[in-house]
Amino acid sequence: MKKIFEIVTRDASSRARAGVIHTAHGPVETPVFMPVGTQGAIKALLWEDMEKLGVQIVLGNTYHLYLRPGLDVIEKAGGLHGFCGWKNAILTDSGGYQVFSLEQLRKITEEGVEFRSHIDGSAHFFTPENVIETQRKLGSDIVMCFDECPPYPSEEAQARRAVEITTRWAKRCKASRLNDGQLLYGITQGSIYPNLRLESAQQLIDMDFHGYAIGGLAVGEPQPMMHETIERSTEILPENKPRYLMGVGTPEDLWRAVELGIDQFDCVLPTRNGRNGQLFTSEGKINIRNAPYRFDFSPPDPACDCELCARYSRAYLHHLFRAGELGALRLASLHNVAFLIKLLRQIRQSIIDGNFQQHKQRFLSKYLALEERIS
Amino acid sequence: MKKIFEIVTRDASSRARAGVIHTAHGPVETPVFMPVGTQGAIKALLWEDMEKLGVQIVLGNTYHLYLRPGLDVIEKAGGLHGFCGWKNAILTDSGGYQVFSLEQLRKITEEGVEFRSHIDGSAHFFTPENVIETQRKLGSDIVMCFDECPPYPSEEAQARRAVEITTRWAKRCKASRLNDGQLLYGITQGSIYPNLRLESAQQLIDMDFHGYAIGGLAVGEPQPMMHETIERSTEILPENKPRYLMGVGTPEDLWRAVELGIDQFDCVLPTRNGRNGQLFTSEGKINIRNAPYRFDFSPPDPACDCELCARYSRAYLHHLFRAGELGALRLASLHNVAFLIKLLRQIRQSIIDGNFQQHKQRFLSKYLALEERIS
Repeated sequence: MKKIFEIVTRDASSRARAGVIHTAHGPVETPVFMPVGTQGAIKALLWEDMEKLGVQIVLGNTYHLYLRPGLDVIEKAGGLHGFCGWKNAILTDSGGYQVFSLEQLRKITEEGVEFRSHIDGSAHFFTPENVIETQRKLGSDIVMCFDECPPYPSEEAQARRAVEITTRWAKRCKASRLNDGQLLYGITQGSIYPNLRLESAQQLIDMDFHGYAIGGLAVGEPQPMMHETIERSTEILPENKPRYLMGVGTPEDLWRAVELGIDQFDCVLPTRNGRNGQLFTSEGKINIRNAPYRFDFSPPDPACDCELCARYSRAYLHHLFRAGELGALRLASLHNVAFLIKLLRQIRQSIIDGNFQQHKQRFLSKYLALEERIS
Repeated sequence: MKKIFEIVTRDASSRARAGVIHTAHGPVETPVFMPVGTQGAIKALLWEDMEKLGVQIVLGNTYHLYLRPGLDVIEKAGGLHGFCGWKNAILTDSGGYQVFSLEQLRKITEEGVEFRSHIDGSAHFFTPENVIETQRKLGSDIVMCFDECPPYPSEEAQARRAVEITTRWAKRCKASRLNDGQLLYGITQGSIYPNLRLESAQQLIDMDFHGYAIGGLAVGEPQPMMHETIERSTEILPENKPRYLMGVGTPEDLWRAVELGIDQFDCVLPTRNGRNGQLFTSEGKINIRNAPYRFDFSPPDPACDCELCARYSRAYLHHLFRAGELGALRLASLHNVAFLIKLLRQIRQSIIDGNFQQHKQRFLSKYLALEERIS
């Protein structure tokens, strides 16, 4: 039997590692950034764009897909892969993060969460069992446990209750049926409390999941606290299982988290920023809507070869944004997703080549210089 | 010297003809549909999409481009081609249609039209001379005269005044400087009055333009009146010059107008309808937002091989529209533009093959059947 997770190379200077996750829809080379396809589409983009970028895995949102188009449609289409026409791997979240965000619209019990749809107000009930069943029907390659994600800041008592229910729910998820080949990840909680993070991780490790996610971060806590929590978590999460940091992030955070031993990331940042005109570039973050770009006929990122940068100028993209042209949203989103996909590919290669630290320094000194000049 | 317009084949049964317009940016095979790139972009689409469809000519709007990004930007980029990164031909309108639509914001004199920008209310003055100068700077391959386009309905006296000023302005346009290789078209007016259409055409023919447009149609008049006016116009417009019907149109109107001797068309319909979920298909017009498509896993148009139809189902596109995903607007717009580009290519081939009438009957009987079933 093929191993689910192989480590190809370990960085000598840090916890960074280059690996491969073998999924039912092909290999996923790690560390990896997973573009977010909330409603069965990467916002402003299409599946052929993901193929052209060589994307091996994307994320889909159980909460959104369950509500619309609904499981009846997706099942008839042969699962989320068939519905979307996407052939590589899909990770689906459990909907926990979304239903806990519906503060006015939900009621939590030991059994599960009752909530009202943000679309039409209809009542629904998510339990660990039916959330796993939904992901079974979606046919995702990596299935996430149903967890409680508390807000930041949370009192320790509140964070503790979230850890406890997350562990009990994880047991019920683990006992639920999945299809052959579907992988199941546990999600650790514990806010920023090291003792809670340790307990949460230990309890999940004891259940032996295929992989482990760090949930409840990137929800507003200061960056050093996030990094500290990642560091404490990867100290105990098993070496031989993939580690997934949910909802991160920025190029700076991605370098740091890989250094701390994280393998998988997802974030809406590249598409959300793209729709606002913010571009990641090798020289730092820029907002293309700003006046100086009106006459700037250079490529948005001179070091990039994406569909935007290979063909269009900053001045043209600036104009499309100012004129409200939809193509602007596509081009900027495409560039940002390509930027993070390629960034993680470079990071992985630097681990394999044994020069992770040099690459990190070189990237960040160039990337952060602009921000420091501006601020 | 190469002829500007060559007729390749004439249809024996009608006034339809297959030809080629030789522009400074390559040949344009006619009859042709020109996608509309109002603000330097085909709405929801990109220039690489036009290349993949084999588009030979697009339309740009002088009024919009003059206001935003402004001529200073476009001149510095080396003209509209350089600004957009588009290598094939561009026809620019004169802005006449747009400024006459600004009813509350404009003042017409013999000299020209004073108007206020719809963007920021700033005051501007268009004259025949400066509109030609603007198009010279844009570097369009086909330049349109500044005309007065009266609304429908117009009293005969109002339509007559519009013809008269359009003729006087056409003279001033003709006397203005263009770059080598730029072609200049006159625009006929006269609303639905046959005598005025005749006068307008005759006066412009006397000035000897490179081509002739029929303006002031598709502005709300009944379809039979539009067809009648086209027929009266192509009776007198010279055989050896390209004829351009502005603002048309639907597949039905395109077949009929080609039959009446029209060579060029432009219309916002494919992109505007696309953004509303309306698709042209070989089996008629459908609105993909409608409920029956929720479970329809067949391609939007089974006879189409575009990026949408080759890959996605009606159910998926229905979902993208219902979920407000931007990719929906792109896919539907792309399909509709591809549909009209390929339709005109089929029409042209049928003229060359000598079976225009059979193809027209076959297309329309299939295309209109659905509409008749529904109504």
